[in-house]
Amino acid sequence: MITASIVGATGFTGMVLTDLLDRHPEVRLDALTSVSYAGRTVPDLFPQLRVRGAYVEYAAERVADSEYVFVCYPHAAAHPVVAELLDAGHKVVDLSADFRLSEPDAYPRWYGFEHPRVDLLGEAVYGIPEVYRDAVAHARLVANPGCFPTVSLLAALPLLRLGSVGRVIVDAKSGVSGAGRSPSRKTHFCTVHDDFRAYGELGHRHTSEMLQEMGAAAGRSLPVSFTPHLLPVDRGILATVYCIPGVVAATGAVAPLLSQDELEEMYVSAYEGEPFVEVRRDVPSLGEVQHTNFCRMAVRVDADAGLYKIVGVIDNLVKGASGQAVQNMNIMAGIPETMGLGARA
Amino acid sequence: MITASIVGATGFTGMVLTDLLDRHPEVRLDALTSVSYAGRTVPDLFPQLRVRGAYVEYAAERVADSEYVFVCYPHAAAHPVVAELLDAGHKVVDLSADFRLSEPDAYPRWYGFEHPRVDLLGEAVYGIPEVYRDAVAHARLVANPGCFPTVSLLAALPLLRLGSVGRVIVDAKSGVSGAGRSPSRKTHFCTVHDDFRAYGELGHRHTSEMLQEMGAAAGRSLPVSFTPHLLPVDRGILATVYCIPGVVAATGAVAPLLSQDELEEMYVSAYEGEPFVEVRRDVPSLGEVQHTNFCRMAVRVDADAGLYKIVGVIDNLVKGASGQAVQNMNIMAGIPETMGLGARA
Amino acid sequence: MITASIVGATGFTGMVLTDLLDRHPEVRLDALTSVSYAGRTVPDLFPQLRVRGAYVEYAAERVADSEYVFVCYPHAAAHPVVAELLDAGHKVVDLSADFRLSEPDAYPRWYGFEHPRVDLLGEAVYGIPEVYRDAVAHARLVANPGCFPTVSLLAALPLLRLGSVGRVIVDAKSGVSGAGRSPSRKTHFCTVHDDFRAYGELGHRHTSEMLQEMGAAAGRSLPVSFTPHLLPVDRGILATVYCIPGVVAATGAVAPLLSQDELEEMYVSAYEGEPFVEVRRDVPSLGEVQHTNFCRMAVRVDADAGLYKIVGVIDNLVKGASGQAVQNMNIMAGIPETMGLGARA
Amino acid sequence: MITASIVGATGFTGMVLTDLLDRHPEVRLDALTSVSYAGRTVPDLFPQLRVRGAYVEYAAERVADSEYVFVCYPHAAAHPVVAELLDAGHKVVDLSADFRLSEPDAYPRWYGFEHPRVDLLGEAVYGIPEVYRDAVAHARLVANPGCFPTVSLLAALPLLRLGSVGRVIVDAKSGVSGAGRSPSRKTHFCTVHDDFRAYGELGHRHTSEMLQEMGAAAGRSLPVSFTPHLLPVDRGILATVYCIPGVVAATGAVAPLLSQDELEEMYVSAYEGEPFVEVRRDVPSLGEVQHTNFCRMAVRVDADAGLYKIVGVIDNLVKGASGQAVQNMNIMAGIPETMGLGARA
Repeated sequence: MITASIVGATGFTGMVLTDLLDRHPEVRLDALTSVSYAGRTVPDLFPQLRVRGAYVEYAAERVADSEYVFVCYPHAAAHPVVAELLDAGHKVVDLSADFRLSEPDAYPRWYGFEHPRVDLLGEAVYGIPEVYRDAVAHARLVANPGCFPTVSLLAALPLLRLGSVGRVIVDAKSGVSGAGRSPSRKTHFCTVHDDFRAYGELGHRHTSEMLQEMGAAAGRSLPVSFTPHLLPVDRGILATVYCIPGVVAATGAVAPLLSQDELEEMYVSAYEGEPFVEVRRDVPSLGEVQHTNFCRMAVRVDADAGLYKIVGVIDNLVKGASGQAVQNMNIMAGIPETMGLGARA
Repeated sequence: MITASIVGATGFTGMVLTDLLDRHPEVRLDALTSVSYAGRTVPDLFPQLRVRGAYVEYAAERVADSEYVFVCYPHAAAHPVVAELLDAGHKVVDLSADFRLSEPDAYPRWYGFEHPRVDLLGEAVYGIPEVYRDAVAHARLVANPGCFPTVSLLAALPLLRLGSVGRVIVDAKSGVSGAGRSPSRKTHFCTVHDDFRAYGELGHRHTSEMLQEMGAAAGRSLPVSFTPHLLPVDRGILATVYCIPGVVAATGAVAPLLSQDELEEMYVSAYEGEPFVEVRRDVPSLGEVQHTNFCRMAVRVDADAGLYKIVGVIDNLVKGASGQAVQNMNIMAGIPETMGLGARA
Repeated sequence: MITASIVGATGFTGMVLTDLLDRHPEVRLDALTSVSYAGRTVPDLFPQLRVRGAYVEYAAERVADSEYVFVCYPHAAAHPVVAELLDAGHKVVDLSADFRLSEPDAYPRWYGFEHPRVDLLGEAVYGIPEVYRDAVAHARLVANPGCFPTVSLLAALPLLRLGSVGRVIVDAKSGVSGAGRSPSRKTHFCTVHDDFRAYGELGHRHTSEMLQEMGAAAGRSLPVSFTPHLLPVDRGILATVYCIPGVVAATGAVAPLLSQDELEEMYVSAYEGEPFVEVRRDVPSLGEVQHTNFCRMAVRVDADAGLYKIVGVIDNLVKGASGQAVQNMNIMAGIPETMGLGARA
Repeated sequence: MITASIVGATGFTGMVLTDLLDRHPEVRLDALTSVSYAGRTVPDLFPQLRVRGAYVEYAAERVADSEYVFVCYPHAAAHPVVAELLDAGHKVVDLSADFRLSEPDAYPRWYGFEHPRVDLLGEAVYGIPEVYRDAVAHARLVANPGCFPTVSLLAALPLLRLGSVGRVIVDAKSGVSGAGRSPSRKTHFCTVHDDFRAYGELGHRHTSEMLQEMGAAAGRSLPVSFTPHLLPVDRGILATVYCIPGVVAATGAVAPLLSQDELEEMYVSAYEGEPFVEVRRDVPSLGEVQHTNFCRMAVRVDADAGLYKIVGVIDNLVKGASGQAVQNMNIMAGIPETMGLGARA
C-alpha cells in the first residue's frame, strides 16, 4: 500500500483528489491539510464524498508517513512547500504552476515572481504521461500540467511533430469549476447561468505551457493564440484547436494538407495503447468525459479553408488535474497506470 | 413628470428598478445611490442596462428633488433612512421588510430588532395592490411585500376569505436572484447548477407576512407551513399552495370541497379586471412570467385527497419586488397602474 | 458469476442498468435487447459508456442463458414478456409498473387496462428492500418501484407506522431524465431550461403506489396528495413530504407532535444498518446523491404549523430505478446487497 | 400604419417576430399562418406572448391586405411562396436562406437544389443594414441573413476591408433555439444540459454567406473556416473571430499588425452612428444582448501570436433573425430604423 497526503485539500482539485485516493485500491489516504478549514470534516464541506475524516493544518510532521504528497496550493505559494517536502524525502506531485515551466525567465513574465529554486525547475518532470511517461516514472517531482494545456497538447502534438504546422489557435471552453471554489462575482450563478463569455482573452497564463510544449514538439518556436471561454457548465473543457500549415524549412513551401484518412490514421497510431486517450470518428461532447480521466478527440481536415481542426474534451478536474495527478503517481510507483481511475470521479 | 430616486440601487432589485424607472414614460430618474459603488457607472456594473449615469453616495440632499424615493436596503438598515425621507416630505416605497409587519412585536421575533418607529408601522400600507389598492393610493409610505408572500397571498387569499380553510402549506421554489447579488458559497454556480435543495426549511422570515395577511383574510389565525427551495434558475418563483379545509365555526363541521368549476369561477371572479393577475386553465410555468409584472395561477381541487392546490408563478424581481414597487408608485401618483410595466423587465 | 440480460435496454433506465451490470463484479452481462435500435452498438447510442456490444431484437432464446432478466418496457407492454420469462424459468426484475399494484382493480383505474395475470400480481414482491427485504430474497418476480414512490415512501413510512398521521402531501421535484429519452416538446431544452413547472398536478399514476404502501404502513387508508414538478436538471428527485397529524383511533384526539429529537431518533433508528439510506441533520441536496444508489433525508418538526416535513433525495435513475433493481437482484441472489453499487453510476 | 403578416409563424423566429410586430407602434399585425397549427391560438403555443389571435392556413388571399409579408419557411420551401407574394405586389422579408446567395451555382452546392428564380436572386438584397442600408431601402425583396453570418460579418468586415487579412477563422457558440423548435434527440434537455459540443464541424451552410460577404469586403476570395458549437443556453451567439494577416498584393509582404488603439479606433469609427452595433472595451457576454437587437463586440490585437481576435455577441432570434427582419422593414418603409426594437424581445 502507498501512503499519500494532500496539502491544500479543500479546493475543487483537492476534493476530487480526496475522492480518487480514497477509492484507490493501493492507496492509504493519510493527512488532508487545509489553511482555512482545519478542524472541519470532509462531509461538512463535501457531503457527496464518502470520506469521513477531518482536515488538519499543514505541518511537515503531519505528512511524515506519506510516501507521496500532492500539493494543491496556488502558484507562488506551492514552491516553498514542495521544496520542503522534497528535502524531507517525499515524492511530490505538484498541481500548481510552480514547476511546469522549465525556463526560469518564464516565471517573472507569466507569473510575476522570480523562481528561487532553479535547481528544482531542472529536475521537475512535466507530467503529461502521453509525452513524458518514462521521465515521470523516475521523477521525484512531477509538475502536473494545467487543464487547458493538457487537452490542447494532446490535441495538437501529433500534428506538430510533423514540423509542417506554422501556427496554432486554441479556442477553449471551460466549465466553471476551473475558476475555483472561492465565491466571486464571476462565479455567481446569476452571472454564469444562461450566459457565455470569453475571458483572459489575451495573455492567459496557460499559454506559457502551450508555447513551451508545442514549440518542443514542433522543433521550433510557434505562434500560439489561446482564448479561454466560460461555459455555464460545472465540469469539462472542450478545446477546438486550429493548426495552420506553415512553410516547411526543407522545401521552403507551405506543406500540402494531409487527407482526412491520413490525419485520422496518424492520430490513431499516435495514441495506440494509450489507456486514457481516444481518437474517435464522431466529434465528442463534454458529457462523454465528465467525471472520467479520458481525453477524447476527433480530427478534421478543412480542405476548403486549408487547415486542420482537432476537437478535444477532458474533465478539467480529472484528466485536467487530479486524475492526471493520480495517473502520474501510479507511474511513479510502478503500479498499473489505470489503477483507481476506472470509475466516475 | 414624476421625479424618483433609488437608495441602494446596486442590488438585483435596484438593478431592475433602475431599468423600469428609466423606461417609464412619466418618470425622470434622479439619483441612484450606493454605499459600495459610489463613483462607478451603471454600465460598469450592469452592461445589459441602457442607463448611463453613475452611482452617488446617499445624502438627503442628493434626493431632495425627488417626489418618490425607493429604498432597497436590507432589513434593519432601511427604517432610519425611510423615516428621514418621510420627514423631508418624500413619498417612499420601501422594498425592505422594515414596515411590512403591523405588529411591533413581530420585529424582535422574526427580524431580531426592536422597531423604533411604531408610529410609522401604523401608517405604512402593505403594498399588494390587489388587496390594498385604495390604501396604497393615499399612502405616504408603502411597504413593498416580500417575493414569496406576494405569490403565496395572491394564490391563497380568495380561498381563505371563504373562512373554510383550516391550514395552509406553501411549498415554494425560487430562482437564485432571490438570494441577492453578493457572492457566497451558496450562490456559487457549482453549488446551484444541476442541483436543487430546500433552505430555511423552518422559520423563514417571509412566513411572518403570510401569517399576518392570511390570518387577516381568513378572519382568524391560521397555521401556515412555508418551505422555500432553491432552483437552478435565475429569476422567478413558483409556489404550490395547499389549502386544507378546516372546521367551519358556524357549522362545527369540516367544509365540503368546492367543485373544480366553482373554484375556478371564484378565482376568475376574484381577479376580474386585475391588470397583473391571470387565472388560467393550464398550470403556468416560470417562463411565462419571467421579466414581467404578471402573476399567473391555476387552481385545482384534489377531490381524492380532500384539498385544494393553487400553483402560482411570478418573477421575484418584478412582481415580487421592483415591478410591484412601480405599480404601487403608479397608484400613489394617480397615473395608470400599468404604465411602464408593459415590456419585459 | 450471475448471467443477466436487459430487455428494452435503450431508454435511460436501460442505459444506467447496462453500465451498472457491466461494472458489477459478479455479473456477466448477456443480451441487451431493443425494438428500435437492434443492430446499433452501445457506444453509438451512449458514447459515455464503456460497454462495447450491440443491441439485439428480443426473443426468448436470446436471453435463454440468463438467470436474471431485467425488463425495462413501458407499462402494459411489460407483463406479457415478464410472464413468458417466468414461465421459461428466469428470475425477473420488472422496472415497469405492471406488477407494482397488488389489487387487480387498480390497473384499470390507474393504467387503463385489465391485468390478465392476477396470479402473478399475488406473487410479485414490491421491491423496496428497506421494507420487503425478506420477501425480495425469495421472489421470482420483483416489481421495482417507481421513482417518486421510492423516495416518498422512504421519507414517510417511519412516521406513518406510528398510526398518528392523518394526511400526507408529497411535493416532488424531478429531473428531466424521469420523462424518458424520447424527444418531445416538453423535454426540448428550450422548454425546460431556466424554467420550472408542475405537471400531472392531479392523478399522477405514481400516486397509486403511494396510496397502497402508505396505507399499508399506517394500517388504514390515508389521503395522499401528490404533485410532481419538472426541474431544469438531468437527474434526481427531491421530495418534500408533509405529514399532518390526524385523529388517533385509540384516543379520539389528534396526536401530539413529536419533538425534533424524538423524530430524528425515530428515523435514525428506523434506518440503522441500511446500506443506502442516510438520515442527516442538514437538509440534503440533489447533488449529494446524483449518480449514486443513496437516499438521503432530513426530518423536521414544524411545531408552529403543527406538522412534520421530511425532505428526501434520490437519483431517479439509480435508487429510483436501475440501482434499486440491482440491489434487488443482489438480495435475490444472496450476494452482498451493496455489490456493484459503490461507484458513481 | 403598416399592415404585416407572417407566413410560417410558429417556429422560434416566427414567435419572436409575432411579439415584435405586435408591439411595434406603426404595425398592424394581420395574418399568422401555419401549416401544422392552423386553428390553434397563439397563447396555446406561446403562453408567454400577449398576442391573442389564432393561426390560419396560408393562402394568398389571407395576406392580401398586408403591405409587408415575412416568410419564415425552411430553405427550399420558401422561394415559391416568396415569388408568389412578390408577384401579388407585396414587399417581402424572407428569413429563409433562399435568396441570400447571389450566385445561382451556390444553391446546388450548399443547399442541394437548383434555384428556379435566378431573376429574383439578382434582385434580392442581402439584408444586413450596416452594410447594405441603401439597397434595403429600395428593395422589394430582402434576404434576411443567417444568425451566424450576421455576427461574424459585423465582427470581421471592418478589418477585411483593409485588404490585409489573408484568412478568417470563425469559432461560434450558439444557444439551442438556433436548432429550431422541433423536438429531436439533439435538442433533448438531457443531451444539451451541462454539456457542450461542436456540430457541423465541416461544411455548415452558413459558411456560404460568410464566403460571399467576406470575399466582397476583402475584394478577393478568402479562406474561411467556420465551426459552430452548441451551448447549454436558450438564446444567443458568441463568435470568436480570428483574422490572420496575409500577403498584401501591393507590397508582396505580410501586412504589419495594427496597434490595439488603431484597431479599436477603426472599429469605433466603422460603426459610428449605427443604432444596433456597439464596440466596447470589455469583452461582452451573451447576457448583455439576449432579447435585444444589439450586436456588441470587442476587438483585440494578439501581438505575440500575430493576429486579431474579435469577439461579437448577438441574440440569434433577434439581431440574428426577427429583430433584423423588423429593422429591414423599418428601413424599407422609411420609418425610424429603431422603431419597435427598443424593448426586450
